[in-house]
Amino acid sequence: MSAHLTILGFNSAIPTVNSSPTAQLLEMQERHFLIDCGEGTQVQLRKAKAKFSKINHIFVSHLHGDHCFGLPGLVASFRLLGRETPLYIYGPKGIKEMLETIFRITETQRGFEVVYREIEGNASEKIFEDDKVEVYTIPLDHRIYCNGYLFREKPKERHLNMEEIAKYPEIEICDYHLLKKGKDFTLSDGYVLKNEILTKPAESPVSYAFCSDTRFLESVVPIVKGVDLLYHESTFLHELKEMADYTGHSTALEAALVAKKAEVKKLILGHFSNRYQDLSVFTDEARTVFPNTFLPKTLEVIEI
Amino acid sequence: MSAHLTILGFNSAIPTVNSSPTAQLLEMQERHFLIDCGEGTQVQLRKAKAKFSKINHIFVSHLHGDHCFGLPGLVASFRLLGRETPLYIYGPKGIKEMLETIFRITETQRGFEVVYREIEGNASEKIFEDDKVEVYTIPLDHRIYCNGYLFREKPKERHLNMEEIAKYPEIEICDYHLLKKGKDFTLSDGYVLKNEILTKPAESPVSYAFCSDTRFLESVVPIVKGVDLLYHESTFLHELKEMADYTGHSTALEAALVAKKAEVKKLILGHFSNRYQDLSVFTDEARTVFPNTFLPKTLEVIEI
Repeated sequence: MSAHLTILGFNSAIPTVNSSPTAQLLEMQERHFLIDCGEGTQVQLRKAKAKFSKINHIFVSHLHGDHCFGLPGLVASFRLLGRETPLYIYGPKGIKEMLETIFRITETQRGFEVVYREIEGNASEKIFEDDKVEVYTIPLDHRIYCNGYLFREKPKERHLNMEEIAKYPEIEICDYHLLKKGKDFTLSDGYVLKNEILTKPAESPVSYAFCSDTRFLESVVPIVKGVDLLYHESTFLHELKEMADYTGHSTALEAALVAKKAEVKKLILGHFSNRYQDLSVFTDEARTVFPNTFLPKTLEVIEI
Repeated sequence: MSAHLTILGFNSAIPTVNSSPTAQLLEMQERHFLIDCGEGTQVQLRKAKAKFSKINHIFVSHLHGDHCFGLPGLVASFRLLGRETPLYIYGPKGIKEMLETIFRITETQRGFEVVYREIEGNASEKIFEDDKVEVYTIPLDHRIYCNGYLFREKPKERHLNMEEIAKYPEIEICDYHLLKKGKDFTLSDGYVLKNEILTKPAESPVSYAFCSDTRFLESVVPIVKGVDLLYHESTFLHELKEMADYTGHSTALEAALVAKKAEVKKLILGHFSNRYQDLSVFTDEARTVFPNTFLPKTLEVIEI
């Protein structure tokens, strides 16, 4: 299992007794990425038995309360739990001023550094990269400046085929790392051993795209092309398309259209308006366009 | 029933799966006063089936996150629910800057006015008064500027004794309001009817004092003298008195001492450190000094 997503909350606007505002925890290559952080996210993380100390990167889509009002409390709890490692927060310009004002006035003295990466651009850009994972912004179209995020594993190393390698004593342990990267091996007599003989294929790198909140946006399609899992908000059914446009949201049909056009493998909907009691109407509508569509469940862990 | 208190949450510092940070809803003479507002308070209010539209006054003791991080979300929800009436927020200086910064950056456009009453004084002062209730600050001693609040019903009107009044046709309906206020009635022949004959005693006005967070403080005693119910924090047992002093908190023994010295009728403890699993140790300790001591329960409604 190389990546999985825990749905911490997916409802829109007003928190209710049985549902939490948007927040997700993505584990990819042992990195723990928190995506959005509505009020109460720290309690949802506890329910999910997440390790607070492993969360080093928080990606905030936009500065509406139902996507960010859990941040001050989470940071305060990090401090109380004795955190020392830096915390990286990615989000729209303004997030630093808001949080630092809160921390100053509430005297949330921190024993660790908070590093802000404020986003202002209108084109997709890489905002995080290490040796195994890359994260890109997905510019969205909401009432307030908003970005989704694309998380993508880097190509993985091939696996050594030890049975074959054992046949060639010339191949030493120090050669293995080049084999894993796909290089051929040239024997001392000049004969070239093809890499495909000495190694087995790597697992395909997986990718996850998070798109909330947004109107239907054609320009999202090429960015999320072919991802393994797409989360796309669908606040309304298509019969309320006008309301969706007015409030800067999508319909289930539109979310499915993005999934179809982008040829993603699987679609998860979310951010449903509180007016809907039975959420199956959303999958009913979306599946007419993109059959592999699912509803999220709170605290569900989705394998990617 | 003239007053009752709903415990929305009472734990300290870090929210957990089963407990919420400090928040209480006091209903007194049909006013709904929210006292402190830790993260998640709006969900606790929903669980308590509170009417959001009836909450017009919020009293914040101090600007530590576990007492105020629920405010932005609650105000945002008020807006989404279509609130139009003003909201009055009482709290330490800085609360306005913090909230207004959040509302500006998150574009929480409000359809109603938020009126701030920032408190800076070091002596008890009246900060709210209408025809039936008064609220006073209770200066406390914490790591950060902090006030408790004393809620006191005004003396109530006496009840008309209609059986006696009927004997005197001279007494007209327009005279009733003076009788209710305790005035005697002079008949046309000069004879004075004593008020005690024409009316029955009013119910005693009730009072509630909220004291969190604070070190043991002698000066609290005269302010909360004789209240019907005192909530006093007791973060630690007395064996951790040094820790209590260092962190600006009280022990159960000290809370009980305040209750005893002030001759209050009943004491509720709260704000317990997460290190304690079995909370009965707090009442065990406090009852050695003040027997009428109780533990709070989440969503419990306490008659005052």
